[in-house]
Amino acid sequence: MSDRRTLILQAATRVIARRGVRGLRVEELAAEAEVSTALIYYHFGDRAGLMRRTLEFISERAERYTEPSAAPQSDPRVHLEQMLLLELQDVPAVVENSIAWGELRSTTVFEPELRDQLRDSTYEWVEYATDLIRQAQEAGTVGEEVIAADAAERLTTLVEGLSERWLSGSTSLNRARELLQGALAAELPLPG
Amino acid sequence: MSDRRTLILQAATRVIARRGVRGLRVEELAAEAEVSTALIYYHFGDRAGLMRRTLEFISERAERYTEPSAAPQSDPRVHLEQMLLLELQDVPAVVENSIAWGELRSTTVFEPELRDQLRDSTYEWVEYATDLIRQAQEAGTVGEEVIAADAAERLTTLVEGLSERWLSGSTSLNRARELLQGALAAELPLPG
Repeated sequence: MSDRRTLILQAATRVIARRGVRGLRVEELAAEAEVSTALIYYHFGDRAGLMRRTLEFISERAERYTEPSAAPQSDPRVHLEQMLLLELQDVPAVVENSIAWGELRSTTVFEPELRDQLRDSTYEWVEYATDLIRQAQEAGTVGEEVIAADAAERLTTLVEGLSERWLSGSTSLNRARELLQGALAAELPLPG
Repeated sequence: MSDRRTLILQAATRVIARRGVRGLRVEELAAEAEVSTALIYYHFGDRAGLMRRTLEFISERAERYTEPSAAPQSDPRVHLEQMLLLELQDVPAVVENSIAWGELRSTTVFEPELRDQLRDSTYEWVEYATDLIRQAQEAGTVGEEVIAADAAERLTTLVEGLSERWLSGSTSLNRARELLQGALAAELPLPG
């Protein structure tokens, strides 16, 4: 991806995190990214194209900042725990990403354009968590009785819900992290 | 509450569920409720007052439609399970309420006005679920080792997350209900 495109997508995420998807005007984005509106239309076609690429950018960026220090091969359980906990961090890229992701999800309730793409991104995340739980079962750090796909879908849903409660001021970040750690213990009992 | 006020609040919930909080214009609400804009301002003061009363209305209505058939005294565990599962139903009042609740939560990320009220409503819901889990522990249908306040906060957060995934088309209603039932089993083990 060209640097200019990346700069525009970073700026789009910031604008959405500040004012919401429905507050995003191409003129404001152009000012934020310090480019012309013509360049935005040149790269993304129309507002819908821009939204699609922004959702893709947000999903890819989340994969990078949630990259745990534990390798998935050596300790899949710790890798999963770190990956999910890294979604609840008070650092600008994560806060921006989480607000923008929540906004795109809630906008999709009203505007169906991004529905399929959002479902696919969600599904990829759930699939990755499912694979890690299965690997942890093989490695003997998660009990055999756990239904990996169910636990993965619940844990990722819980991360979204905790993130929304934190960002909307209904719970603190520390409490959200503590609750997620408790969920990992309840959903992923040790063998035996 | 006067019938006219209730009609306006029902209409406000419908409009929010259809177009979002940010799509709510007092003129459109007046048309939907078949009253004058002056009457809306007379009853609610300003847009902020209307939003506060609408959030209150939504919270109270949720208490009614999630009223389980099992009495909390006779079977607190089943009462809790029914209460949470009743949040995931494809009936107009629940869908409207869930969309409006999700919208108010996500709007609060950007606009702090309803933050305290939303936190209080959330807290009341969590408290009620906590009490039910404690009663179930006393009745011997939930294990002593469960931390009631944590399980309650997680289960209600999960309901919000599942509701958002369902309403945004990332999961089906049946799957959301199945996942919630699994969470109840994982979070609330029987006494061992």
